[in-house]
Amino acid sequence: MIDRAREINARAAIEYCVADIESLHFPQGGFGAVISSLVLHCLEDIGPLFLGIFSWLRAGGRFVFTVERPVFTAEGSQQRVLDEGGEIARFPVDNYCVEGKRETVFSGERVSKFHRTLTACFGALTSARFRVSDLVEPAPPKDMLGRPGMRDELRRPMMPILRA
Amino acid sequence: MIDRAREINARAAIEYCVADIESLHFPQGGFGAVISSLVLHCLEDIGPLFLGIFSWLRAGGRFVFTVERPVFTAEGSQQRVLDEGGEIARFPVDNYCVEGKRETVFSGERVSKFHRTLTACFGALTSARFRVSDLVEPAPPKDMLGRPGMRDELRRPMMPILRA
Repeated sequence: MIDRAREINARAAIEYCVADIESLHFPQGGFGAVISSLVLHCLEDIGPLFLGIFSWLRAGGRFVFTVERPVFTAEGSQQRVLDEGGEIARFPVDNYCVEGKRETVFSGERVSKFHRTLTACFGALTSARFRVSDLVEPAPPKDMLGRPGMRDELRRPMMPILRA
Repeated sequence: MIDRAREINARAAIEYCVADIESLHFPQGGFGAVISSLVLHCLEDIGPLFLGIFSWLRAGGRFVFTVERPVFTAEGSQQRVLDEGGEIARFPVDNYCVEGKRETVFSGERVSKFHRTLTACFGALTSARFRVSDLVEPAPPKDMLGRPGMRDELRRPMMPILRA
């Protein structure tokens, strides 16, 4: 009984690993689910990673990820356009079909991101033999709309969640 | 032999039908493919239609459609924002998460469209038991970029094609 408890405990243990996402290697079929949160837009090429993730998943396994939305990364600045009174006028979209590097400022730091279209994201998934089972763009629930900035989050789509 | 040719001919005949898309009825499993071109953004509710289309398709049948992209319908005007010199500065996105009616002008006529998010489009497909197998946002090929206005089509996504 104690051995069985130890076994379960060992199986449930979480192993943390700090590594370059582009050089990760795991056994084939070793996972039931792979989750990625807001990092894929930092990679120039997601194709090899998606192939890897597909191979690490068991049959019927799930890959769930969020990524900055192409509409958000396209123009580059990721800044709102303000009107003369300093209010948000709109969110800019430009050069949507021109994929590649974008430089922006996040929390005071200069960061590089790679803009790719939704077409490219879908293509990378289907090329890796994934089937896209859902796509959801989260929006703040009604009871959060009173909080600072939350109502503005209804104005532009920022980060979809995809399940494949 | 003549009877067989007549039968094939009758089967291959195209029957045109002018009708309200929201009150169409066809036999269950009667089609191998359903194609819709740039009309679904004119419907307030696509749910019942998608359920109908799923039932009219044979097992393994395909529903392929284009629709004006949510990013294009969100703000409402569907007009480019020009800079002081009259050049296109960017494409505006606003009120993305606020679904519903938009009024715009197309070829000099005032038209109503219904903005819905990509989430809602995906949701209507999966609720009707469709599986989304591909999503492509067409862009002009390189050899067309010299034609008037074509280069500007690289700047904003306008109409994705979905296959389900």
